[in-house]
Amino acid sequence: MKLYDSKRAPNPRRVRWFLAEKGADDVEIVQVDVFKGEHKTPDYLARAGLANVPALELDDGTTITESVAICRYLESVYPEPNMFGHDARETAVIEMWTRRAEMLLATPLMLSVRHSHPALAALDTQVPAIAESNAAGAGRALKIFDRRLGESAFIAADRVTMADIVAYTAIDFARMIKFAPPAELANVGRWADEMRARPAAAAGV
Amino acid sequence: MKLYDSKRAPNPRRVRWFLAEKGADDVEIVQVDVFKGEHKTPDYLARAGLANVPALELDDGTTITESVAICRYLESVYPEPNMFGHDARETAVIEMWTRRAEMLLATPLMLSVRHSHPALAALDTQVPAIAESNAAGAGRALKIFDRRLGESAFIAADRVTMADIVAYTAIDFARMIKFAPPAELANVGRWADEMRARPAAAAGV
Repeated sequence: MKLYDSKRAPNPRRVRWFLAEKGADDVEIVQVDVFKGEHKTPDYLARAGLANVPALELDDGTTITESVAICRYLESVYPEPNMFGHDARETAVIEMWTRRAEMLLATPLMLSVRHSHPALAALDTQVPAIAESNAAGAGRALKIFDRRLGESAFIAADRVTMADIVAYTAIDFARMIKFAPPAELANVGRWADEMRARPAAAAGV
Repeated sequence: MKLYDSKRAPNPRRVRWFLAEKGADDVEIVQVDVFKGEHKTPDYLARAGLANVPALELDDGTTITESVAICRYLESVYPEPNMFGHDARETAVIEMWTRRAEMLLATPLMLSVRHSHPALAALDTQVPAIAESNAAGAGRALKIFDRRLGESAFIAADRVTMADIVAYTAIDFARMIKFAPPAELANVGRWADEMRARPAAAAGV
């Protein structure tokens, strides 16, 4: 197994964090420098299908992209601690919250960064209305997570799961545009402190 | 088990289609009229957590939203025909393509409809730049799916999987804004014809 990783991009961080929670240190890591365009070389595209990092190349040559698909596969290799669910019911609850974290926080915050941060202006046209509408949407979504975190230690369960990794890394990435959960969302604040203090948080940066 | 469904919304259609592929006709269906705001009543919100349809209420009272999480749960109840993968490798490939269909087609097309269709103007402010940028993104993504469908009968496997349902229902929904795959994408055209001809397509409308 080979993990194509990229230090500065947010989605590869999810996989690094996931592996650190598992204590898995035997996956071969290949660094892909996206600022040098290494994710767009013919060799990389032939492997990954798209110019996306992270990508996980299995021993049979199959290459998986999409961080959540990669992590679910890795859970089959490193089952403990469980982060995708012990049974069908818990798996569904965790997937529901992981998707909410993806759709309501991670995608909007990524779009807001892409459409407003000066360092990304060269990549593509920036549309201020897209940046604003997405940052506002993520702000509204945080209230949903705050309510949930008032009744649950972590987002989807009483332990860290994939949903927490997706949500926290998105919020942390958005510090680039000075996005921060408002102080009155005390449950989000408590949870963010706990996520930041985990050893895997450092492995993920 | 109770499925909260809504006839006119695109995401519930994924679940109806999925159940039809399974031949499962014993799930209790409760219609929720989103145009009457039935997804925003205190009773519905207490159940589903968010004003989202579809939602699946399990016999223990747990309610799952998010169509893909619902379908993965339903696969545990109705295992055949398999639509999420037989083993970890195939599950990862199907999840990768399902997520690509979601992020590259379904979300952009939904945003494009929301920000440009006159019938939705009353729901929220419409930003033409968001509609245009998302429709263009979906158009580019179709080329990726066309390449894939040149080498595979369906998007993620040699049979219909969750990825096909997510991609096809998104494209079909976007007919509302006269979005259609260009004729030169012959593989997408061949696949779309096959999807449209499935009995489950009718159950899904």
